[in-house]
Amino acid sequence: MKKSNKLKIGIVGANGYAGAEVLRLISAHPDCTLVVATSRANEGKRVCDVFPALPCPLVFSGMKDPLLKTCDAVFVALPQTAGASLVGELIDCGVRVIDLSADYRFDDTELYNGVYGVTHPRPDLNKLAVYGLCETARDKIRAAKLVANPGCYVTSVLLPMLPLCRAGLASNIIADSKSGVSGAGRKSDENYSYCNLDENFKAYGLFTHRHAPEISEKLGKEVLFTPHLLPVKRGILSTVYFTTPDPDAALEVLRGAYKSEPFVSYTDALPEIGHVAHTNRCMFSARFSGNRGIVISVIDNLLKGAAGQAVQNMNIMFGLDETAGLPQYSPI
Amino acid sequence: MKKSNKLKIGIVGANGYAGAEVLRLISAHPDCTLVVATSRANEGKRVCDVFPALPCPLVFSGMKDPLLKTCDAVFVALPQTAGASLVGELIDCGVRVIDLSADYRFDDTELYNGVYGVTHPRPDLNKLAVYGLCETARDKIRAAKLVANPGCYVTSVLLPMLPLCRAGLASNIIADSKSGVSGAGRKSDENYSYCNLDENFKAYGLFTHRHAPEISEKLGKEVLFTPHLLPVKRGILSTVYFTTPDPDAALEVLRGAYKSEPFVSYTDALPEIGHVAHTNRCMFSARFSGNRGIVISVIDNLLKGAAGQAVQNMNIMFGLDETAGLPQYSPI
Amino acid sequence: MKKSNKLKIGIVGANGYAGAEVLRLISAHPDCTLVVATSRANEGKRVCDVFPALPCPLVFSGMKDPLLKTCDAVFVALPQTAGASLVGELIDCGVRVIDLSADYRFDDTELYNGVYGVTHPRPDLNKLAVYGLCETARDKIRAAKLVANPGCYVTSVLLPMLPLCRAGLASNIIADSKSGVSGAGRKSDENYSYCNLDENFKAYGLFTHRHAPEISEKLGKEVLFTPHLLPVKRGILSTVYFTTPDPDAALEVLRGAYKSEPFVSYTDALPEIGHVAHTNRCMFSARFSGNRGIVISVIDNLLKGAAGQAVQNMNIMFGLDETAGLPQYSPI
Amino acid sequence: MKKSNKLKIGIVGANGYAGAEVLRLISAHPDCTLVVATSRANEGKRVCDVFPALPCPLVFSGMKDPLLKTCDAVFVALPQTAGASLVGELIDCGVRVIDLSADYRFDDTELYNGVYGVTHPRPDLNKLAVYGLCETARDKIRAAKLVANPGCYVTSVLLPMLPLCRAGLASNIIADSKSGVSGAGRKSDENYSYCNLDENFKAYGLFTHRHAPEISEKLGKEVLFTPHLLPVKRGILSTVYFTTPDPDAALEVLRGAYKSEPFVSYTDALPEIGHVAHTNRCMFSARFSGNRGIVISVIDNLLKGAAGQAVQNMNIMFGLDETAGLPQYSPI
Repeated sequence: MKKSNKLKIGIVGANGYAGAEVLRLISAHPDCTLVVATSRANEGKRVCDVFPALPCPLVFSGMKDPLLKTCDAVFVALPQTAGASLVGELIDCGVRVIDLSADYRFDDTELYNGVYGVTHPRPDLNKLAVYGLCETARDKIRAAKLVANPGCYVTSVLLPMLPLCRAGLASNIIADSKSGVSGAGRKSDENYSYCNLDENFKAYGLFTHRHAPEISEKLGKEVLFTPHLLPVKRGILSTVYFTTPDPDAALEVLRGAYKSEPFVSYTDALPEIGHVAHTNRCMFSARFSGNRGIVISVIDNLLKGAAGQAVQNMNIMFGLDETAGLPQYSPI
Repeated sequence: MKKSNKLKIGIVGANGYAGAEVLRLISAHPDCTLVVATSRANEGKRVCDVFPALPCPLVFSGMKDPLLKTCDAVFVALPQTAGASLVGELIDCGVRVIDLSADYRFDDTELYNGVYGVTHPRPDLNKLAVYGLCETARDKIRAAKLVANPGCYVTSVLLPMLPLCRAGLASNIIADSKSGVSGAGRKSDENYSYCNLDENFKAYGLFTHRHAPEISEKLGKEVLFTPHLLPVKRGILSTVYFTTPDPDAALEVLRGAYKSEPFVSYTDALPEIGHVAHTNRCMFSARFSGNRGIVISVIDNLLKGAAGQAVQNMNIMFGLDETAGLPQYSPI
Repeated sequence: MKKSNKLKIGIVGANGYAGAEVLRLISAHPDCTLVVATSRANEGKRVCDVFPALPCPLVFSGMKDPLLKTCDAVFVALPQTAGASLVGELIDCGVRVIDLSADYRFDDTELYNGVYGVTHPRPDLNKLAVYGLCETARDKIRAAKLVANPGCYVTSVLLPMLPLCRAGLASNIIADSKSGVSGAGRKSDENYSYCNLDENFKAYGLFTHRHAPEISEKLGKEVLFTPHLLPVKRGILSTVYFTTPDPDAALEVLRGAYKSEPFVSYTDALPEIGHVAHTNRCMFSARFSGNRGIVISVIDNLLKGAAGQAVQNMNIMFGLDETAGLPQYSPI
Repeated sequence: MKKSNKLKIGIVGANGYAGAEVLRLISAHPDCTLVVATSRANEGKRVCDVFPALPCPLVFSGMKDPLLKTCDAVFVALPQTAGASLVGELIDCGVRVIDLSADYRFDDTELYNGVYGVTHPRPDLNKLAVYGLCETARDKIRAAKLVANPGCYVTSVLLPMLPLCRAGLASNIIADSKSGVSGAGRKSDENYSYCNLDENFKAYGLFTHRHAPEISEKLGKEVLFTPHLLPVKRGILSTVYFTTPDPDAALEVLRGAYKSEPFVSYTDALPEIGHVAHTNRCMFSARFSGNRGIVISVIDNLLKGAAGQAVQNMNIMFGLDETAGLPQYSPI
């Protein structure tokens, strides 16, 4: 493949953790060229000067950079509603967009409005958007102009539980999830300081976290969801409790659902965050006792839970090898 | 108080984390003198040479050390069944014993046998033993010859849930608990190596952990209990899900149950492990939605979950100030 | 001792890490009553509401609280120069002060002005001040109205190196020091966020750190000092390189210098941060090869390096047991 | 490139951290096919069953696996002397070898014997070996049958200091180095347990570490080297003190030495371990005061300090793009 055949990629909001992780993946992607990366906070500065860990030759530009409209695909990693008008302009120019915010994740715009306390800026675009849980919607993603990248906690719960719910094999679902600190984003906030979080652990958002309605809408049933903050940089482990009318059938469904998938797999042994950190994989396992079931599911919140799944969506959209540029082996 | 009025204390198994923590507390206790500490592995060596963190002038002795029988109280921190005959001998000599193993925790000896896969060596002693969840059994503890110190996970769940269950206000209980690594004890095992656990998190013992039957026996109802391993040295946070016929009454019970207790408290804000690490406290809070309730409960697994509660039991047994020698303020 | 015989203590700046650590120690000190704690940021709030880890019944007051002048001793833990006029007022009222800032640490006021880029607000007070490196200046501390508590890095270097320098046994000194994050103070700054510091390590302040001139003034010779930031909450380890004309004599001096001290000790094995964390101890050891020597010295930066040494100074000033209220055993 | 054109690669000792890291890199390398991986401990087991983090389809074989002799290149990651006869056999069969042990690192076999307390099993092979510090010996590496991969600490010190020493611009060198725990290898040893190393930091091997003579031989002058153990999984930061007759010239040399290198760079800001973790990069900076200089140098001990440099050596040996398969961007 000649360089001119590579996809031209833009990243909006490349300063945040998810955006910077997209930047890192795209920079090493064999089929992509990063042509523009925006950051309000760092406009005009070289990426490598702001982030010595990312020896990228680009200079951060602003959101108005005309290069964005010359891209084949743009990743938008902005806070809720901040990217709405830009996403519309890009799509009008024929640029395909992967949006990492929650803006286009909900089928029900009213639900979105209620959960995020805003009025959806572009309900028309919302109708175009495809919910990009890759393994469950490939055909739609392939054709999509706009992909809504799923939430991190959500991905860890949906991948094992969607097949169970679709088969009518899970009820009374409680998802007790634990996430690494990068899930909170880049922050100057004492609550996220090293001294506050090291050797610490806490729950938050009981009955009120925004990912609960996203999980419930996609599963088609109410889920009780409780997030916790782990003293690790990356990774989510979800412990999902449920009742099932048929444990054997449930196990069968879980074992079979992703049999040929490169990134999602059932394992006999219980998976750990360390098995998937720094990869785009989701691993899960299950145990049963009577009609009670427990699923343990792990992902890297910044990869399969954000930037990795976003790049996987791009790979699908453009007919590339779905695994291109996405790590599968977890380092020590 | 003259030195001769101080309690003479022995520790059996002072080499393990719980035993060493008792040693640390007793060494700073204003009303105690440590006269003997045993360790099979380190017999004959000075404590301060084996553990430079513990500048204790004593030499570790063996389990046959006759000084044990001259003590007012002996803490026994040995693996299951290993201390049984010694505990009997000590009690026969009039020495009061706080046992930190599971040997005397169960009312039902057959249940103990099944859970630990052994035959209880001294069912007769088991009848003497008082289950030392301090705040719930002070009168019995005061008179006890033998106190069975509760399990760490168990303590974190029982303190908030016992009052609820006694009031008939909690059913369908699921305890999703997360513990620091010291809960596993001192180990030369790659599974507990720094590289294996740092930046990692995992569940274990699904449907099979030994603390589940201990919790269920004490609450008088089945509890689904799932432990997890946190990358912190100390601390347990339990997220307890339940249904309740009356959320207002449940909150009332939780708020009132330990109102005048120095170590146990309901808090409006959600407690974190960092609020109680290195203290003997238990803090918990609750949230409700419809008939669902969630309790968040935190303790330090080595203090309120082991050595601290053991010393608190001793304080009660001997009529000392119950808070003597027990930290209440958590450091940064 | 009746309650009325306890020392009445005030803390100014009890919101910072060092001030809060003094608060924690004083609250458990057998001979003290905490009567006032100030915090600009949290004036009017209960300590236990701001810091759930500190179940202290007091309400934070402001710096003008008249109770301060009724105290026997006040700990001042404010940024450079911020406490100067208050310290003067307190001393005029007969209140003895332990100042944890750098304001009164330098004999040479001009040096202080240059290092901190300020004009010393009270050079007159500076003449009164005693440099409170406890083990080296007990008689002066006992009589002092104002004690300047030494810097954290400084304490770790001075304790082993002062005896060597006084004996003319160390030259060409390089102190390569590594500190836990709490040394930087309480901060809302992304540079001190969990994601920035976890799994990270860095040097800073090469040739320019403010503790270098403090070390050099006290040792009476130039020292090359390089600080580093460790991913731990507490603790300093200093690796001190030097040349010596007589290694045997140097070892003799190091072994003998603190022989009967409760908090400072030479050890044959190399000490680790974990041996002294959460204690007021300093442990050090040395190795020699030819005329080269290396000293390894460890302290807890918040205790022997700040609040612990401050309380030790108070104990000396008021003729209390020097170890009262100060932990000597390090937990797991 | 057709699959049949890919290099056939073997790994001996793929169970250790360095070997497993080679396995991870080779599995994602665009120009390589992993055909055999040996492990004494896990012979006959699937890699993905032993290491769920490495979803590799291979089964571990033993050291006698005849496939090794069919490889284009074999990485040998065994303890000292354990691989000696195998390396000889492989080279006799025309297989090119990258050895990650210390066996072939020393020019002076007698020095090796003394440092490692053994008799070198193949001094004849030692003469063939090329010391594989990639940026300093490309021509020799290109032609080499046997490359000795440098030590991890050594790499962090040599890359900045070799150009200085060759230019006569550095003397009186002291290297104070700090390494992540993975540098110690995979271990079942309480000293490397989570509870022992978390929140801890220590020095070790004062005046006696095996990397000191390796550094000194390569620099051509004595170096005082002190290693320390950081509570991080990966990364080395070396603080190198030296005197220089000409600071300006020294800075010039450091800035210019690796100007066009993809993996080694001088930076104005001080580099941190987090800037290079999970990459094959070395970053360093320098500060001067009078004739004193300090270099701060960082690498990932498992990549540029072991497996990454080993793969870089392979890339050079076979004329591949030198950066192929080697990460350059460090994740959060």
